[in-house]
Amino acid sequence: MRTQVAIIGGGPAGLLLSHLLHLQGVDSVVLESRDRDYVEHRQRAGMLEQGTTDVLRDSGVGDRLDREGLVHHGLELRFGGAGHRIPMTDLTGRAVTVYAQTEIVKDLVARRLADGGDVRFEAEVVDLDASAPSVTFRSGGETRTLDCDYIAGCDGFHGVGRTAVPGLRTYSREYPFAWLGILADVPPSTDELIYAHHDRGFALHSLRSPTVSRLYLQVSPDEDIAAWSDARIWDELAARFTTDDGWTLREGPITDRSITPMRSFVAEPMRHDRLFLAGDAAHIVPPTGAKGLNLAVSDVTILARALTERYATGSETLLDGYSDACLRRVWRAEHFSYWMTTLLHVDPAATAFERRLQRSNLEYVATSKAAATSLAENYVGLPLT
Amino acid sequence: MRTQVAIIGGGPAGLLLSHLLHLQGVDSVVLESRDRDYVEHRQRAGMLEQGTTDVLRDSGVGDRLDREGLVHHGLELRFGGAGHRIPMTDLTGRAVTVYAQTEIVKDLVARRLADGGDVRFEAEVVDLDASAPSVTFRSGGETRTLDCDYIAGCDGFHGVGRTAVPGLRTYSREYPFAWLGILADVPPSTDELIYAHHDRGFALHSLRSPTVSRLYLQVSPDEDIAAWSDARIWDELAARFTTDDGWTLREGPITDRSITPMRSFVAEPMRHDRLFLAGDAAHIVPPTGAKGLNLAVSDVTILARALTERYATGSETLLDGYSDACLRRVWRAEHFSYWMTTLLHVDPAATAFERRLQRSNLEYVATSKAAATSLAENYVGLPLT
Repeated sequence: MRTQVAIIGGGPAGLLLSHLLHLQGVDSVVLESRDRDYVEHRQRAGMLEQGTTDVLRDSGVGDRLDREGLVHHGLELRFGGAGHRIPMTDLTGRAVTVYAQTEIVKDLVARRLADGGDVRFEAEVVDLDASAPSVTFRSGGETRTLDCDYIAGCDGFHGVGRTAVPGLRTYSREYPFAWLGILADVPPSTDELIYAHHDRGFALHSLRSPTVSRLYLQVSPDEDIAAWSDARIWDELAARFTTDDGWTLREGPITDRSITPMRSFVAEPMRHDRLFLAGDAAHIVPPTGAKGLNLAVSDVTILARALTERYATGSETLLDGYSDACLRRVWRAEHFSYWMTTLLHVDPAATAFERRLQRSNLEYVATSKAAATSLAENYVGLPLT
Repeated sequence: MRTQVAIIGGGPAGLLLSHLLHLQGVDSVVLESRDRDYVEHRQRAGMLEQGTTDVLRDSGVGDRLDREGLVHHGLELRFGGAGHRIPMTDLTGRAVTVYAQTEIVKDLVARRLADGGDVRFEAEVVDLDASAPSVTFRSGGETRTLDCDYIAGCDGFHGVGRTAVPGLRTYSREYPFAWLGILADVPPSTDELIYAHHDRGFALHSLRSPTVSRLYLQVSPDEDIAAWSDARIWDELAARFTTDDGWTLREGPITDRSITPMRSFVAEPMRHDRLFLAGDAAHIVPPTGAKGLNLAVSDVTILARALTERYATGSETLLDGYSDACLRRVWRAEHFSYWMTTLLHVDPAATAFERRLQRSNLEYVATSKAAATSLAENYVGLPLT
């Protein structure tokens, strides 16, 4: 079997790439190791930069996003018992939208199938050749080879794509904490996200919809989730979100809970021969800055343009510039994610001096228009150039 | 003998405090352990915030500053072989002035003596009582006691003032590098300061006058200055300031050279009973952000106001608020100085990931108006409230 672009991974990166290529008349096959139900229901990010919503909308998969997405014009930093709003839209002219990654995946799967796209679930890639491009995969007990012009490795941090790049330079950092995240059937206690710094640790009040809250607690990386009863989770959240004016947190049934490690990771270059890496396959950010999904979208947007140019004109100029173009954006996001993570979390190894610097920086961001604008322009995302 | 305010230390903090108090009819005696010549010639900082020049000018000691000071409206960040100007005045409406601390000291000594002020050189404080306020000092072979209402500890990091505060909380950080600083009789190769980040280490091109350059090199904290010949210093400076477009560094006779350690330090509170600490006695910053002298000036400006209020009205409200008022500004400067230091220096222990984050941050500051404004507003100094 043969296609123009073999796409490994049926998450948002791979599906969106396949969709964008289809709109330009470029054929692809998406190979996803998991089944459709799993892919459409795993809980991931949910905060979209304006550039991300623009790509989805402009490519015709933004209808439900426009109906159900919740546009946010600000966020709250909460520390020292008080909230400080960062008015992102006032500061940058842009906004972000709450719309869960799972919903984007559902929209893209439905659209690819409606357009006759070839999306194969439970198709596990076992080998690939980046030079005489082909991908070998197992599906339904059979092993098959997909010949192609190019391969896109959109298969995440643990995928096979990155392992096929020789001489990769990698950069990483592990953080001395993790996030315990819950979904709860309770209307959010806030209209905008609350990023709380407290001596007990970081907490984030996010949301999925007008009736579903998403909340996170900083915990130890080796935390046992079994040690966290519903009551303990709500008590700890309430303690970290506490304000001097008696703000209260609404509680409700917890429907999902998990612990996510915090990691920064970059692999360079993002290309080897005819293999291109995109999204988590090439880079990971801690979730504090909400950049992971948005980087995946910007990677495949850049890649779709480059492949489109290649098929339209024969020129490989954009393909040759792919890695550098992505990495400029990636390193900005890596720095911002690191900065926002260290701004807000309690590092158990921090000295008393470092804790005071952190507090000074929080107060500065909360009171300086320049510092708040810097946070805001990174959070809403730099324009896709 | 008796006075209203006994001031320990005849550096810029102690002298300015004595001058400001005199203008309000409050008597003081300044006790300085060194001789006048030493105090007037030790090389220190030379970059004044607009708030600092305002205080000097408004109190009548700004004539020579206005004639000889060099007003700067921007600075240059140099990395990756190119310069990036931060247009401070465009971004903040404020400017900084190059005018050496030694010159401020000369101006203040001259003015205090002309006004009949009591400034005693070679007067070493050996004891003080913060409760029944008095200062015991040795001068000319005699030991004398100066009774007073209040004591101002303006005697620097190694002074006796801070040791008289029980229960002090201290915060500190040592940096894994130092500055080798030179004075050279050569016209500056630049109109504005150049802060250079290079793989070989940080370098700073500053200046003292149209004919005297001040330059610094990041070196190891245990560096032996004897290992640095003139030729080696100029070669290393040229290497770190190199640009892709062939910028050249003018060389000239080196007239002064020294190695300065880099330290962050804060002592809290800045008051004990009737003793008030100001300037380096209470806090140290690494010199990268040019904040040390400016903090000393803001401390004593706040203290002079508080003492003036006390003598004019009997109210101790401002005195009671002195420590908190200073520390808000101190911690902002501590954070900024730490930030600018880590932005620009090469930390030998940094991971490859951290070095890439640093480079991403440099590029961000050089290209984002918000980030540049944040640097600029800290550099020119926040308004004295």
